[in-house]
Amino acid sequence: MSAPSLPPGRLYGVGVGPGDPELMTVKAVRVLGEADVIAHFCKAGRHGNGNTTIDGLGRPDAVRLALAYPVTTEIPRHDPGYRDAIRDFYEGAAETVADHLAAGRTVAVVSEGDPLFYGSYMHLHVRLCDRFPTEVIPGVTAFSGAAALAGVALAQGDDVLVVLPGTLPEDILARRLAESEAAIVMKLGRNLPKVRRALAKAGLIDRAYYVERATMANGAAMRLCDKPDETAPYFSLILVPGWETKP
Amino acid sequence: MSAPSLPPGRLYGVGVGPGDPELMTVKAVRVLGEADVIAHFCKAGRHGNGNTTIDGLGRPDAVRLALAYPVTTEIPRHDPGYRDAIRDFYEGAAETVADHLAAGRTVAVVSEGDPLFYGSYMHLHVRLCDRFPTEVIPGVTAFSGAAALAGVALAQGDDVLVVLPGTLPEDILARRLAESEAAIVMKLGRNLPKVRRALAKAGLIDRAYYVERATMANGAAMRLCDKPDETAPYFSLILVPGWETKP
Repeated sequence: MSAPSLPPGRLYGVGVGPGDPELMTVKAVRVLGEADVIAHFCKAGRHGNGNTTIDGLGRPDAVRLALAYPVTTEIPRHDPGYRDAIRDFYEGAAETVADHLAAGRTVAVVSEGDPLFYGSYMHLHVRLCDRFPTEVIPGVTAFSGAAALAGVALAQGDDVLVVLPGTLPEDILARRLAESEAAIVMKLGRNLPKVRRALAKAGLIDRAYYVERATMANGAAMRLCDKPDETAPYFSLILVPGWETKP
Repeated sequence: MSAPSLPPGRLYGVGVGPGDPELMTVKAVRVLGEADVIAHFCKAGRHGNGNTTIDGLGRPDAVRLALAYPVTTEIPRHDPGYRDAIRDFYEGAAETVADHLAAGRTVAVVSEGDPLFYGSYMHLHVRLCDRFPTEVIPGVTAFSGAAALAGVALAQGDDVLVVLPGTLPEDILARRLAESEAAIVMKLGRNLPKVRRALAKAGLIDRAYYVERATMANGAAMRLCDKPDETAPYFSLILVPGWETKP
């Protein structure tokens, strides 16, 4: 007879919010404190922002598992080489996590913001949720952190709100911006000059706010028209508040 | 000489998340535990869902301030009578809160989900933020809680995500749904039959999920095509996940 096998560990996708450790949920703090393995995505050789948020959390004996992207912006995203490299990376990362789960270890995957809102965690989720018990802990999104820092009401009542990746072509951005009451433009970075032109075309440049590193120690919010340069870090976004009048 | 006046109290808009008390942020729990006054919006005579989430929190001597809407769905929303009644209500609520702040008391306004994302708190914020020190604590939105319960990835990569109030006309809903990769339809309630027709027109009925009371004790998620009736509570929404393929 073979030895009795352990029950598998549980996979958690843990949203850790927009940056300020105090904006983690009570549940995220609890699950990270109990996990056997704490995994996070990062660029090769970097600490990773999600990981900074959870500094000091986790059991001293917890395994720390860095899932380092083989490429980020070195290869254009529509290049087949990029696609293949990223797919192989996610397959490998999922199997590494699966080995821990199969050995009975709880694995908490740290996800900046909310795990299912433009997060990397979902690439593990779809590969593992049919094989292991899985739970997603929702988190505060970056845009909620940004709206709080800027002190602007994003949307209200019958407002239509659109979330646009700044990677889209300028004419599509301009058209989608023009037809919504409220907008969030994510993935700003090197796309800021293009996004600024699209906002101008849509007649929204005066209503737009630029926010970087919201809820982090060095966060800043300003009207876009007051931003003098075109430099935007990874953690930056544009808000176009929909709700401007008092009822 | 007059007596020295107290410094004013601080106004907090506190996002308490989608329902599960453990999905409040650490900061929300702290601020609610310290507040002199805990205010929440509710329907006249009802307890209010935001208030249920924070049961057991707050100092025993904290003032509990229920801000009860004079009308909700009894008068059509575009009726001038509705508009006037709601405006007068927000003006009065803001002055009640202002009296506490002027007396040096900290006031925490409980807001379901995130305060600046379709929340009532903003009606107080715009009336008070120029007169008193004010801080917004972002929270987990209902849609993040719903995606976590359904276990579906909302959006990824270049997906455009649109947030639509179910109160919009059917043809506008259908058009906006058809042109986005991912969608969230809020304010479902009595609008569910119309939203279902709009999803069918947009060719999305098979991709849509129905979620009610996500992260609450009696929450449920299902594919919309598996929902046999047209009954939807206030805390329900539709998700159309944008991201369906593995890279």
